[in-house]
Amino acid sequence: MITQINHIGIAVHSLEEQVPFYRDVLGLNYLGEEIVEDQKVRVAMFKVGEVKIELLEPTDPSSPIAAFLSKKGEGIHHVAFQTDNIEEQLNDLKNKQIRLIDEQPRIGAHQTKIAFIHPKASGKVLMEICQPGGDEK
Amino acid sequence: MITQINHIGIAVHSLEEQVPFYRDVLGLNYLGEEIVEDQKVRVAMFKVGEVKIELLEPTDPSSPIAAFLSKKGEGIHHVAFQTDNIEEQLNDLKNKQIRLIDEQPRIGAHQTKIAFIHPKASGKVLMEICQPGGDEK
Repeated sequence: MITQINHIGIAVHSLEEQVPFYRDVLGLNYLGEEIVEDQKVRVAMFKVGEVKIELLEPTDPSSPIAAFLSKKGEGIHHVAFQTDNIEEQLNDLKNKQIRLIDEQPRIGAHQTKIAFIHPKASGKVLMEICQPGGDEK
Repeated sequence: MITQINHIGIAVHSLEEQVPFYRDVLGLNYLGEEIVEDQKVRVAMFKVGEVKIELLEPTDPSSPIAAFLSKKGEGIHHVAFQTDNIEEQLNDLKNKQIRLIDEQPRIGAHQTKIAFIHPKASGKVLMEICQPGGDEK
């Protein structure tokens, strides 16, 4: 079952340029930065209510975020829905004939299990399904 | 002070085509539909955790959502941040030299006070600031 929005991922050219807007102008709670090697991105995280905002800066031209930036420019890249049981959620989506990018969950940062729905199945909105690991804030 | 994300607005060609995905596939809590005359849109609303998802279908070619759809196609249109005092929030943004679309709050559906930040000020992400009225769920 989907319980909440976990985060909104926003593609940016430069964390250095965009972090001050979210931290100092909007005044959101800045959680810090990390590198996600798998996606070749540097991520700056903010918390607002129960949702995180993740700014995604590519660390390499082969990053999927670099491809997104050159095609569409800066902007919202994906929305992540949090589930209490990702295996059950993915089986449910498969039973409903929903096309998935990841048929099985991958392990992301902080042992979070993640999978993407194919945007052709979700009206062009890229959606992640995720189940946080034990150390997720 | 910004306290949470109030909603994510998603531009769609047809509520009829997209509502089943959010309601029946993702299983989100469907709150119903309404017309917002001011924006010339029909809106289908869902609740997931503390956040609403609003699907926006233009009711007229002069709707800003119709313009967005012909320029960019279906996808996320804006993110709305909820504040506990919109006048104070807008003054704070003006003091920080942030360009606004609405210098003063407008009244939206359910007596919610709303204002948009100019996307040039927020890294191309269209952001709404809102303060719900008394009857907001």
